[in-house]
Amino acid sequence: MEQINDYINTHKDRFISELIELLKLPSISADTAFSQDVLETAKVVEKSLKEAGCDKTEICETKGYPVVYGEKIIDTNLPTILVYGHYDVQPPDPMELWTSPPFEPVIKKTDLHPEGAIFARGACDDKGQMYMHVKAVEFMIKNNQLPCNVKFMIEGEEEVGSDSLADFLEANKEKLSNDIILISDTGMIANDVPSITTGLRGLSYVEVEVTGPNRDLHSGIYGGAVPNPINVLNKMIASLHDKNNHITIPGFYDRVEEVSAAERAEMAKAPFNLDDYKKALDIADVQGEKGFTTSERYSIRPTLDVNGIWGGYTGEGAKTVIASKAYAKISMRLVPDQDPDEITELFTTHFKSIAPKGVKVKVTPHHGGLPYVTNMDSVGYQAAAKAYETTFNKTPVPERTGGSIPIVALFEQVLESKTILMGFGLDSDAIHSPNEHFGVWNYLKGIETIPYFYKYYTELAK
Amino acid sequence: MEQINDYINTHKDRFISELIELLKLPSISADTAFSQDVLETAKVVEKSLKEAGCDKTEICETKGYPVVYGEKIIDTNLPTILVYGHYDVQPPDPMELWTSPPFEPVIKKTDLHPEGAIFARGACDDKGQMYMHVKAVEFMIKNNQLPCNVKFMIEGEEEVGSDSLADFLEANKEKLSNDIILISDTGMIANDVPSITTGLRGLSYVEVEVTGPNRDLHSGIYGGAVPNPINVLNKMIASLHDKNNHITIPGFYDRVEEVSAAERAEMAKAPFNLDDYKKALDIADVQGEKGFTTSERYSIRPTLDVNGIWGGYTGEGAKTVIASKAYAKISMRLVPDQDPDEITELFTTHFKSIAPKGVKVKVTPHHGGLPYVTNMDSVGYQAAAKAYETTFNKTPVPERTGGSIPIVALFEQVLESKTILMGFGLDSDAIHSPNEHFGVWNYLKGIETIPYFYKYYTELAK
Repeated sequence: MEQINDYINTHKDRFISELIELLKLPSISADTAFSQDVLETAKVVEKSLKEAGCDKTEICETKGYPVVYGEKIIDTNLPTILVYGHYDVQPPDPMELWTSPPFEPVIKKTDLHPEGAIFARGACDDKGQMYMHVKAVEFMIKNNQLPCNVKFMIEGEEEVGSDSLADFLEANKEKLSNDIILISDTGMIANDVPSITTGLRGLSYVEVEVTGPNRDLHSGIYGGAVPNPINVLNKMIASLHDKNNHITIPGFYDRVEEVSAAERAEMAKAPFNLDDYKKALDIADVQGEKGFTTSERYSIRPTLDVNGIWGGYTGEGAKTVIASKAYAKISMRLVPDQDPDEITELFTTHFKSIAPKGVKVKVTPHHGGLPYVTNMDSVGYQAAAKAYETTFNKTPVPERTGGSIPIVALFEQVLESKTILMGFGLDSDAIHSPNEHFGVWNYLKGIETIPYFYKYYTELAK
Repeated sequence: MEQINDYINTHKDRFISELIELLKLPSISADTAFSQDVLETAKVVEKSLKEAGCDKTEICETKGYPVVYGEKIIDTNLPTILVYGHYDVQPPDPMELWTSPPFEPVIKKTDLHPEGAIFARGACDDKGQMYMHVKAVEFMIKNNQLPCNVKFMIEGEEEVGSDSLADFLEANKEKLSNDIILISDTGMIANDVPSITTGLRGLSYVEVEVTGPNRDLHSGIYGGAVPNPINVLNKMIASLHDKNNHITIPGFYDRVEEVSAAERAEMAKAPFNLDDYKKALDIADVQGEKGFTTSERYSIRPTLDVNGIWGGYTGEGAKTVIASKAYAKISMRLVPDQDPDEITELFTTHFKSIAPKGVKVKVTPHHGGLPYVTNMDSVGYQAAAKAYETTFNKTPVPERTGGSIPIVALFEQVLESKTILMGFGLDSDAIHSPNEHFGVWNYLKGIETIPYFYKYYTELAK
């Protein structure tokens, strides 16, 4: 494995330019206007797996965007690692806040990335982190260092809920059979504080529509006499949190796992500076559920956030109108053992029940995902920890993060295998935001660390 | 005056086709993209005044859109009527709800307009109602029936707050000197229930911006731990009404005129059917301030309505983002003796005071206007009443409406003359909404009635 450093030094310029080419493709799965680009990206990913040395690659059709599959089987008696990633990206808007175009990657230095970071939508989430695995496997194959079998499953619908993946898994259990699943789609605490994600939050995402009068009205002639759907929607949403920022939906907390004081104390050891946190976001104060720290609020507690709201006149100037309809996109982050379908049901029932008689309410579920927690004693976790120790000379910190990778829970259900989350991005890499980027150092460090996971996992799994 | 009917019968096709040409011009003052069309419309209006027989016409520059002026002075010893109207229109959106393009006028029959109505943005508000006066004056001049002097002042910024008008009035007091101001920019109760507007609400219109984190954030990684500006804005707006739908801004009601039980009883005589009202709007229930009837809520009581709201991801699909900013346009309708500037000040102070520490709040005033009440004993009101009695064979009902024509109060201050509001449109004509229209019968009835106002006003003013 030691040759990995030489290999990286020799090929790093190519590793970077290949990723930059991949990032130029606007594979925005949420917007059908880009469907051709998403499909084109799948082809490019398949080609990269072939070039890395996979014996077999395939673009597998689904009812949505295809899944790119690839494999290198060296000995069926050896363990098999299944690498999961996604080639689709979040929409880039608001465009005006990007300092360089989201699909024209450029390398710029930042305080946290003195060696430069690649700025582009998808640089970190997840094209950059997914491609680390392709390059790590390329190294192992080209240098006869692959200690076990490897399979790739790279999907194109992660940012819109992986709708087609469940069917795909059910239909391909045999092809996807594995001993452990490896994913890099999370972050680490800092470049000198490697961490392994041990917990993920689940998700319930809904869109609501409130209809008042059957047409837009003059706010002078009707104002004050008819239900204004925007005012009504505001009242309804406001009522979903009480003054302690507890969520008021009946039954919402019933299945929430109570984390022990001991575990909370353990988690509290992870480095976190509230002042730096506030400074980085330029907020005078944080805000969240009473009785929990900031890092607990985004890791072990469920939340309800409005992700988008619109209605009425939003153009230039002033229009004195009462809109007929108002809309909002609302997502709830879930923790063990909440069930997304149940939560969506609870939300829908409650939201309709609090609507005044004068309006009609429609709730449309978008997508959901189960929360997930992994076990630190597992072979997978131990192998990952040793890999980090080898390349970072530090023991990684176990961390529960607030994000959701719904398919991780799905994998456990359908493929009956555990997932190890080795993230190499930083929170400050602005994923889902304008100016998303991924440190060049982090990219190469990932390529260096991954082969050691293969090595230690194969040894420990014996 | 009797010849008016013959004149209308002879020329009505031309009256209609001239109005249709005027309605084809998209004079949207709120959107700078249409500034050339607004200016073009001013020219067309000036030409129509010339053709109607005005001795003198002029396009008067202002710091905004010009005011079109015209006059016919027959004898300085006779009274002078100043006609006010506006040639600008509201934005047409939402476009998709129009059954025919807003600037391609067509005549269609409706239940309330069996003789057909002209469908187009501005058909009723205010091009159609303004043009009735041009045609009525054309009749009087061409037939030597003009009993007094007439002046026209047609502006192009009414839909955006008449920002330039105050300066224009101050600078042209002499030119605009008059005995009475006549406006058709309101409605009447029904085609068989003529009414004269005796009260108008004032207006305070603000735009608010709430800023949370300095960039859009991943709702999984930050959700529940930082102030979400959309959730915060919803809470803030929701708190502006209490459970009885009273507005909670301190001092908001201090200057509100308490209407006497007697006057409320008088107003209650105006025909109003709540079931028809709800049916027409397809709402199961009305909503408004406790302790007042529906017609009181939109006439003698102040209100606060959100006219537009936006923030976060509003595109197709689902995006798990926490927005950096959220916005809303909020208007307050005012009644005597509330002052718009004072109310805007009270709103701003209160709104900022209720913001949680974690967000920054910006409030930008758009425009305002004073409320207005006219006197039923005045010569102007009496002349208008007699005109309606002559052409409708009915005594008109005095009515306070919820709309605002801020400049009416301004006229009283600067020009020291009273205004008479003779409206010929119906509430159902959908002004400020998709499919705005104006009944052909109403248009011609206005042209028929207006000359009688000139006749009776000149007689009574002696």
